[in-house]
Amino acid sequence: MFGKRYSGLLTDLYELTMAAGYVGTDGAAGFTEARATFELFMRSLPARRNFLVAAGLEQALDFLGNVRFSGEEIAYLRGLPLFRNVSPRFFDYLAQFRFTGDAWALPEGSIFFAEEPLLRIRAPIAEGQLVETSLLSILHFQTLIASKAARLFSAAAGRPVIEFGSRRAHGSEAGVLAARAAFIGGCAGTSNALAGHDFGVPAYGTQAHSWIMAHEDEAEAFRSFAELFPQDAVLLADTYDVRAAVEKIIALGRAPRGIRLDSGDILGDSMWVRRRLDRAGWTGVQVLASGDLDEDHIAALLHAGACVDAFGVGTSLVTSADAPHLNVIYKLAEIERGGKARGVAKLSEAKKTYPGRKQVFRFRDAEGRFCGDIIGLEDEEFAGAEPLLAPVLRGGRRVDTAAEGSAAIVCAARERFLLNREHLPKRLLSLEPLQQAFPVRHSERLEALFDQVRRTFVQSASI
Amino acid sequence: MFGKRYSGLLTDLYELTMAAGYVGTDGAAGFTEARATFELFMRSLPARRNFLVAAGLEQALDFLGNVRFSGEEIAYLRGLPLFRNVSPRFFDYLAQFRFTGDAWALPEGSIFFAEEPLLRIRAPIAEGQLVETSLLSILHFQTLIASKAARLFSAAAGRPVIEFGSRRAHGSEAGVLAARAAFIGGCAGTSNALAGHDFGVPAYGTQAHSWIMAHEDEAEAFRSFAELFPQDAVLLADTYDVRAAVEKIIALGRAPRGIRLDSGDILGDSMWVRRRLDRAGWTGVQVLASGDLDEDHIAALLHAGACVDAFGVGTSLVTSADAPHLNVIYKLAEIERGGKARGVAKLSEAKKTYPGRKQVFRFRDAEGRFCGDIIGLEDEEFAGAEPLLAPVLRGGRRVDTAAEGSAAIVCAARERFLLNREHLPKRLLSLEPLQQAFPVRHSERLEALFDQVRRTFVQSASI
Repeated sequence: MFGKRYSGLLTDLYELTMAAGYVGTDGAAGFTEARATFELFMRSLPARRNFLVAAGLEQALDFLGNVRFSGEEIAYLRGLPLFRNVSPRFFDYLAQFRFTGDAWALPEGSIFFAEEPLLRIRAPIAEGQLVETSLLSILHFQTLIASKAARLFSAAAGRPVIEFGSRRAHGSEAGVLAARAAFIGGCAGTSNALAGHDFGVPAYGTQAHSWIMAHEDEAEAFRSFAELFPQDAVLLADTYDVRAAVEKIIALGRAPRGIRLDSGDILGDSMWVRRRLDRAGWTGVQVLASGDLDEDHIAALLHAGACVDAFGVGTSLVTSADAPHLNVIYKLAEIERGGKARGVAKLSEAKKTYPGRKQVFRFRDAEGRFCGDIIGLEDEEFAGAEPLLAPVLRGGRRVDTAAEGSAAIVCAARERFLLNREHLPKRLLSLEPLQQAFPVRHSERLEALFDQVRRTFVQSASI
Repeated sequence: MFGKRYSGLLTDLYELTMAAGYVGTDGAAGFTEARATFELFMRSLPARRNFLVAAGLEQALDFLGNVRFSGEEIAYLRGLPLFRNVSPRFFDYLAQFRFTGDAWALPEGSIFFAEEPLLRIRAPIAEGQLVETSLLSILHFQTLIASKAARLFSAAAGRPVIEFGSRRAHGSEAGVLAARAAFIGGCAGTSNALAGHDFGVPAYGTQAHSWIMAHEDEAEAFRSFAELFPQDAVLLADTYDVRAAVEKIIALGRAPRGIRLDSGDILGDSMWVRRRLDRAGWTGVQVLASGDLDEDHIAALLHAGACVDAFGVGTSLVTSADAPHLNVIYKLAEIERGGKARGVAKLSEAKKTYPGRKQVFRFRDAEGRFCGDIIGLEDEEFAGAEPLLAPVLRGGRRVDTAAEGSAAIVCAARERFLLNREHLPKRLLSLEPLQQAFPVRHSERLEALFDQVRRTFVQSASI
């Protein structure tokens, strides 16, 4: 079911009613020419996430570059009673719709924190509004999964983690994109063949219980498979009885690449299997563990001395099961009309947002470690700090015109994550919530701008 | 990003290695002609799910009817070191791959329980294996969401629930399919425009905070919007101050369709807003609540006397946040080789599965209410019980050749759910876990077949 379709209807209907308002009611309102700045960020982090890993930008830019409304889709909208009073000019606008704005973003693989824009859009207001829903869903999902993968990477302490979750991802597309995001977040590969094909993520996998069950004799199932895949067979030992299965494998007399344990007492079985393999002289045969694992199980297994060389992790990773969503939002931060820019903000304390076009500035300590971020205005400068948001679209076109393949982009993102991770204060790598979060604050100019917007609102309200 | 692509690579790589084993190593093994029966079911239900709602079958059948391997995808597989020893015959097989098997399924909208097959496939074993991953991901996701929607439907006690979650669904495809599944599970509509277009799900939505913030004056933002959408405007009151916003709306002198509260004290504000609207004579203006709601919030709000006419529910619904995955599996149940059928099973107690081709039989009490299910063999009969699995594919072709549109299929599924729900014992509609689950048991013939498979295994193991 998964494929590319950049329909303009991939949006909440209210983006279309608001766009109709902006495009179809000009004259007095004068919104046709208005440019708006929208920022996409996380209001807060889940309790058990000390940092997030940016992912999904390529798919977001692909969407912005290709989103269109077909004639047939426009006819659907025209037929909705809701749009009965809307001017035909709006439907002409949709027929010619292209995203023509500018965009800045955190490169994929960047480590970031709450309130830091992952993406900033500056575009005619209707355009910025129409792309909201898709930008959120694309960036939210891959960032969610890359950030979960980063926890598994920490838990596995140097052992490879392979993403195995396509079957329980939220649909076919989610499976493929979860594989991409998990790789960026440190996984060594995926079981998803299409993610291997489309994004160059290393694809792994050999046999399931059904292979064993289809044969009347388990030993025969192992033998025929090892013959077909002499260098790569990872044989599944837990269909009936792990120890009996391992004896049958050893009796074949040909060392497989590995043995997989998918259920039962992984700790005890892995120690037994390791000893038995070593006794057979098969010290190079790996033990792979899978079956409803997550970062806590992995950390506990390794702490208890499990003899596992690699982990396969499915459901908990591709659904980010302990935190299946992030508190992601896309907020209007500034509007420019008639040559005048006005910062805008949500004032309610629970959902407060800051006005203005923002940049994230990252500071390092003497050892080069990240030591704090300031969210400031785009044109601010802080000595020694690196601005993290980079331009990615200008006038709707990609800034980087180099034709990098998707595999190269994904590899670069993974390397960026691993490098960012090395520079993170070690305490952030804990799987548990921190007493003290990574220090992120807003700049003084940003705080002043917020106060100014609030004063203006209070004044106009009291008139 | 979402569209139709029925790539054969939408699968775990191990399905391809096993298929290579089945197709490429015939002769002695003789699997080329073997037919296998696979069954897709839930091993157990999440703690807070008393029943599940089947959904996603249309997309699953669409996948089975259209899955193909392109030449370029086959070239990718040939290039993997893993396949270095695999016979070219396997790649020729993939080039001509079509799903030619038979399938039986629960109709969409059916209420079902743990261990009951949602889908049964009988096909050449390599075919049944290659489609496993996609069938699981397609049926798992929509069933997950329809089942969550059913809880919201119960909590809202007759008030409409609109699905609002596309932005935090697990990608664009998940957003559209969640809207479809939520509608089947009782939601009244969706904010997702493409789900409206593709599946005829009623699409709702009017304005966001950004519309208010883009205007310098909140009253002007309400006025211009209500003018453009005179019959349908639902105005958002919580951008700055709910009560001040409602006064501005009333001062316009033109009743909108509704007022939406998206944050803050929904209980207190909804009661205040209702009284204020009634005092203005606007008794027909609805109050819509949204903003991080789930079934527990909704039930608590209504219990406390909130004056809410309809609910918008996003994140918790489209991610099924309290249970973001189901324990879904796809298991080999029987294999036919050389004219002989052999039931197969996983024997390990924790992951026990039953052999044989199964059917689900549902019993009703004197009032027509569902009172128990028996999982039996396909050819069993139970007086007064209705068999639930119906044939959907024969030789790879749809059994129902009537060209129903997707909207009609979705509506029929929603009606089936609502009718099934009426026949469910009332205690199952509780939002809390039950002391006593709905009674489901395996038939005596099925238990006997399991024992026979186990005995055979034990005998062959002891030889």
